[in-house]
Amino acid sequence: MKQLKIHLPVKDIPRQWYNVLPSLPKPLPEAKDPKGDFSPIELMKKIRPRSLQEQDAAPNKWITIPEDVLDKYLKIGRPTLLQRAVNLEKYLKTPAKIFFKREDLLPTGSFKLNTSIAQAFYAKEEKFEGLISETGAGQWGTAVCVSAKLYDLQAQIFMARISYEQKLYRRYYMKLYGGDVYPSPSTKTAAGRKMLDDRPGHPGSIGTGISEAVETAANYNGKFAYVSGSNLPHVLLHQTVIGLETMKQMKLISEKPDILIACVGGGSNLGGFFLPFFEEKMKKPGSITFLAAESTAVPRLTKGTYRYDAGDSSGLTPLTKSYTLGQDFIPPEIHIGGLRQHSGSPIIGLLRHEGLLDAVAFDQTDIFEAGRLFSICEGILPAPESCHAISAAIKVALEAKEEGKERTIVFCLSGSGFFDLEGYRQILLSDKKKDVYAHA
Amino acid sequence: MKQLKIHLPVKDIPRQWYNVLPSLPKPLPEAKDPKGDFSPIELMKKIRPRSLQEQDAAPNKWITIPEDVLDKYLKIGRPTLLQRAVNLEKYLKTPAKIFFKREDLLPTGSFKLNTSIAQAFYAKEEKFEGLISETGAGQWGTAVCVSAKLYDLQAQIFMARISYEQKLYRRYYMKLYGGDVYPSPSTKTAAGRKMLDDRPGHPGSIGTGISEAVETAANYNGKFAYVSGSNLPHVLLHQTVIGLETMKQMKLISEKPDILIACVGGGSNLGGFFLPFFEEKMKKPGSITFLAAESTAVPRLTKGTYRYDAGDSSGLTPLTKSYTLGQDFIPPEIHIGGLRQHSGSPIIGLLRHEGLLDAVAFDQTDIFEAGRLFSICEGILPAPESCHAISAAIKVALEAKEEGKERTIVFCLSGSGFFDLEGYRQILLSDKKKDVYAHA
Repeated sequence: MKQLKIHLPVKDIPRQWYNVLPSLPKPLPEAKDPKGDFSPIELMKKIRPRSLQEQDAAPNKWITIPEDVLDKYLKIGRPTLLQRAVNLEKYLKTPAKIFFKREDLLPTGSFKLNTSIAQAFYAKEEKFEGLISETGAGQWGTAVCVSAKLYDLQAQIFMARISYEQKLYRRYYMKLYGGDVYPSPSTKTAAGRKMLDDRPGHPGSIGTGISEAVETAANYNGKFAYVSGSNLPHVLLHQTVIGLETMKQMKLISEKPDILIACVGGGSNLGGFFLPFFEEKMKKPGSITFLAAESTAVPRLTKGTYRYDAGDSSGLTPLTKSYTLGQDFIPPEIHIGGLRQHSGSPIIGLLRHEGLLDAVAFDQTDIFEAGRLFSICEGILPAPESCHAISAAIKVALEAKEEGKERTIVFCLSGSGFFDLEGYRQILLSDKKKDVYAHA
Repeated sequence: MKQLKIHLPVKDIPRQWYNVLPSLPKPLPEAKDPKGDFSPIELMKKIRPRSLQEQDAAPNKWITIPEDVLDKYLKIGRPTLLQRAVNLEKYLKTPAKIFFKREDLLPTGSFKLNTSIAQAFYAKEEKFEGLISETGAGQWGTAVCVSAKLYDLQAQIFMARISYEQKLYRRYYMKLYGGDVYPSPSTKTAAGRKMLDDRPGHPGSIGTGISEAVETAANYNGKFAYVSGSNLPHVLLHQTVIGLETMKQMKLISEKPDILIACVGGGSNLGGFFLPFFEEKMKKPGSITFLAAESTAVPRLTKGTYRYDAGDSSGLTPLTKSYTLGQDFIPPEIHIGGLRQHSGSPIIGLLRHEGLLDAVAFDQTDIFEAGRLFSICEGILPAPESCHAISAAIKVALEAKEEGKERTIVFCLSGSGFFDLEGYRQILLSDKKKDVYAHA
């Protein structure tokens, strides 16, 4: 029997996060305030834990993971498995080896806990009484509520109203851990009330959630720490535990990746997975390809522009430079494949701009089909976001077959699809699509 | 850092199932036909794979797991983890060690795949074209559809109508793997049509599903194999892979269980987990306690009678001897904690009757609270069925504390709660219950 699962012993869990900032080919463009009197930069200084702000500009390559965060990492099941997709390889008849990192195995079903735990730790240390944030579909909100509970903090989550009403399980999950979950726009904030006045029955979005969470954090005057699940350097930093483990696991079996693949929304899964390999890539150009998989419905990296833009729709957050589709961009309503952000991480934007990151886009029918094929081959039902990475891995594996090349592909399985069966149904089951992988 | 996770190397995966039949203290009471002309025993002979019928009366203690089933076991992630609940121990301030076997990590979120894969293998080998079965909440039906897909077989599932309408995710999950899922009672069978005539809008049950599945299998005349997810000796046999792995994992860390705990419905999780330890228990009486955790709403082992009874409500299955609440027993409508079967496995019944199996019952508020505590301590959201085992483990750990005794508790975490958040909500969130474990 082949070795399918590569365990990293508990004693080998990474004890430092990797900070790419000092090794970037150019300095990261700094955040800016928009025109006018209001300074989002000053506001953020007040409502974000100071340690996290410091990490956003840390000069050191390695940052020690606090002992207590390490303990929590063990508690949630880190190190996670690295697994080889031998059945998918066989189905594709590819000479490529396909490995995948199992972040879907974390307790909330996604990789988000890696940073929410760290953020809760620092918030607690700095005497905040709770965490406040926004969530779209609920992966991030769940991670925040679980992490808050681990540190005996309160949690308030503004959840896009449409998800609040449709994704009941995610909402219950957050409440189970004691989180207060509000549909956004809500009547709890001035911003929310204005949005509801302007548009009764407003469906909400991550953007409306950010506005309400930020306003609430500001009003509570230091009681609640405002935390974010993507984009920011400290979020990518905490997520490097994924790539660092993967690196050790590949060494354990004497394999070297030719290409690393991850899906990209805000960029924290991708950053956390790729960045630890960055210096190796720079030392030997062409040695490792970084490939980002995004959605054709939200084609940030493949069709966006590299420029300053706001992270939310109401101008409460600082302007940052990255690839963007514009702050007014709204994904088509039929798009349910996740990765909906109009803009993303400045670090990822810089890498892309410098030609160090490839990108490919897939439409949602293709990604759900890829997810189904993967689940049939490997038995694991992936989240729609992760299906983008799977689509890219399949594409590369088929190209390797075409060229008769052995390639070592490693992708990140960022989350479980257990909460996304409605999406699978809408795309694959409702319209009598033929089962293209019927006999996988 | 403590060792929390005990991996069994792939090469050490059990290669034989353990068959308890030759070692039972008394012969297993044989199945009987009910009064009248119709012989369920003869019918079952025609619609069940022959290999499985032979396994139900196998004389050998060890039965080789077919190479292809072993490969599929690896594919679904076996061997599964054994984990230590250090955070729960700390919360309870108990001197007891608590270990748990992670069957929740299997791809469909429950232990059911261990037998559905084996049954699909034999059905395929015996040239059946498909599998047919019933399902209540959907765990078993999902496992059947996934296994059928793995062996390129068709799948037909009769799902209790009320679950069909309410547990949409489970239904989509089955359809995603190409299964045909019908709400039972349906208009597809004579039995279903009669039930709908007698009671329009009939909510259905596992019992109605059995009747329709059996009738359909009989009508297809050997095309579809009728398969079952619990009760029968071959089902428990296949599930012994759980206990066999656990035994090896405990040896790896030089630990010996004082008490094994599992939830009990039909009895396959419990049987699969306990039985491999049976001979050790018999050699040294008092050395290992077997504890079954059931629901006060369906108190089979704690309040039922040991006698012959039918497994379904319409008399299409043979009579078997076990503990039963009577074939007309219907759990209270408010009961959503699973484990609803009125009767169970003859092997488990015999062990209980011979005084070799202890049993304890918990009500559903307690088990969901235990599940919440566990999820807060260990980060893993358990299925309601598994919450019964957790409740029992907590009870034993607190008794150990009371007595100042070190005890080694091992329980089976049979499934994930990701599909059961509605149940958690109904019991814990909707009625403003206070959070008794607020600061775990």
